[in-house]
Amino acid sequence: MRNLLMKVSYDGTHYNGFQTQPDGRTIQDIIEKAIAGLSGETLKITASGRTDAGVHARSQVFNFYSDSPIPPERWCSALNSRLPEDIVVTDAQEVPLDFHSRREAKRKTYRYTINSNQFPDLFNRRYQFHHHGRLDMQAMEEGLKHLLGTHDYTSFASRRSTKPSHIRTIYSAWMEVDTSMCRTGNTRDQGVLHTYLTGSGFLQHMVRIIMGTLVEVGEGKRTPDSVRTILEARNRAAAGPTAVSKGLMLWDVEYDELSLIRPQTDF
Amino acid sequence: MRNLLMKVSYDGTHYNGFQTQPDGRTIQDIIEKAIAGLSGETLKITASGRTDAGVHARSQVFNFYSDSPIPPERWCSALNSRLPEDIVVTDAQEVPLDFHSRREAKRKTYRYTINSNQFPDLFNRRYQFHHHGRLDMQAMEEGLKHLLGTHDYTSFASRRSTKPSHIRTIYSAWMEVDTSMCRTGNTRDQGVLHTYLTGSGFLQHMVRIIMGTLVEVGEGKRTPDSVRTILEARNRAAAGPTAVSKGLMLWDVEYDELSLIRPQTDF
Repeated sequence: MRNLLMKVSYDGTHYNGFQTQPDGRTIQDIIEKAIAGLSGETLKITASGRTDAGVHARSQVFNFYSDSPIPPERWCSALNSRLPEDIVVTDAQEVPLDFHSRREAKRKTYRYTINSNQFPDLFNRRYQFHHHGRLDMQAMEEGLKHLLGTHDYTSFASRRSTKPSHIRTIYSAWMEVDTSMCRTGNTRDQGVLHTYLTGSGFLQHMVRIIMGTLVEVGEGKRTPDSVRTILEARNRAAAGPTAVSKGLMLWDVEYDELSLIRPQTDF
Repeated sequence: MRNLLMKVSYDGTHYNGFQTQPDGRTIQDIIEKAIAGLSGETLKITASGRTDAGVHARSQVFNFYSDSPIPPERWCSALNSRLPEDIVVTDAQEVPLDFHSRREAKRKTYRYTINSNQFPDLFNRRYQFHHHGRLDMQAMEEGLKHLLGTHDYTSFASRRSTKPSHIRTIYSAWMEVDTSMCRTGNTRDQGVLHTYLTGSGFLQHMVRIIMGTLVEVGEGKRTPDSVRTILEARNRAAAGPTAVSKGLMLWDVEYDELSLIRPQTDF
């Protein structure tokens, strides 16, 4: 038996999130079906964590146990030939039997994208929240800084969160503005704002509530310092709305033993 | 009566090209339908040129004559509210009555994108040709240089071309490699290759035949210098295959009087 670790990227637009749901059509269902078709094994995969309906992943990580003789380096292409074009497995390798994708995930990075140009970028329309009107991005960045460190993030967690503790650590958070789609000299085009958050882990809807709150800061409805007050309130009602899911992407999952997720280089 | 000039970007995936066809479903049809719905006018728009089925446009230009009292700066949002999400009008303004989008277009730039990483980039899968196996990009760039200048491009034109002359000028041509999707240390990921071609005009399938030929150069099936020989042959049979349409994008259309396509800045 092998413990196989894989990296997968997916466009979440047409799925009910990563984790198997009663009403089906999840990334996990599709991957498990592809594995069954390939190796004949009916099994469950374990991911680094779930992503909500409509959320994308550049690099999600999962592992599962297989008795298949298929060598690890063959799995990527073999699975991709059975997966729809909006799910692509990019790395596969054998890891120690005791390796667990979720328990051993040390850091996760999410990216949230807001298009603050006058018109949507149709080539990225499924991966951006298009915001109408100008945003004070400097104020948003100031507000973001208040979230760094170790805190109880109850104010930024879904009320449906069942986690025993809402204490998490955000190691780093930064913003980048892409002006490549801005029309020359057009004052209504502010660029596309990418916000990256790296933390020990994130609660349900946490990044989206943070972004929904920061957008209100950018609109001048809240001050940057109000983010600290919201954090201290430990009350979901104190924060802003949950930003739309399509702007969110699981960017990276890190493990202490980086060798465990070394890139696959076999031909 | 006003002569209205507009810029439009579109995802060509689901359309039979720009220009009206007997079997319908073209960008032009959709835009003219939106104009009719907005101003009640049944009219024909004139574009800088046609694009083939499946080809995209970052910035296509068209104009038309309207008696509508709707002010130019209102047209963009009004039309976009009636257009599908894969067609977005980004600029609108009044131009002199004698301005003609096609006749006065002085320079056009096309971009062709080849993903030479091991796996497709699913977030850009509709806008990239995914090439399996390594490409000698330096050789491709050498081959590309032979196409600069004024030549008879018959070898790189569709046999169906009805143009009286196949002489065109390519002012500049360059390549850029985007390695942002490459997996660290993975020797199978070469990056995404963007090739830009700026010319006085392009014949039917010209950019796609050029790219299909350059891919064969990159694969080592042809030498960079063979591109010159192909050009001199003035025979379509001498060149390589026509590259898939989804990798092609009309990037920009330039006019001598830049003020004619100044960005719209009205609120």
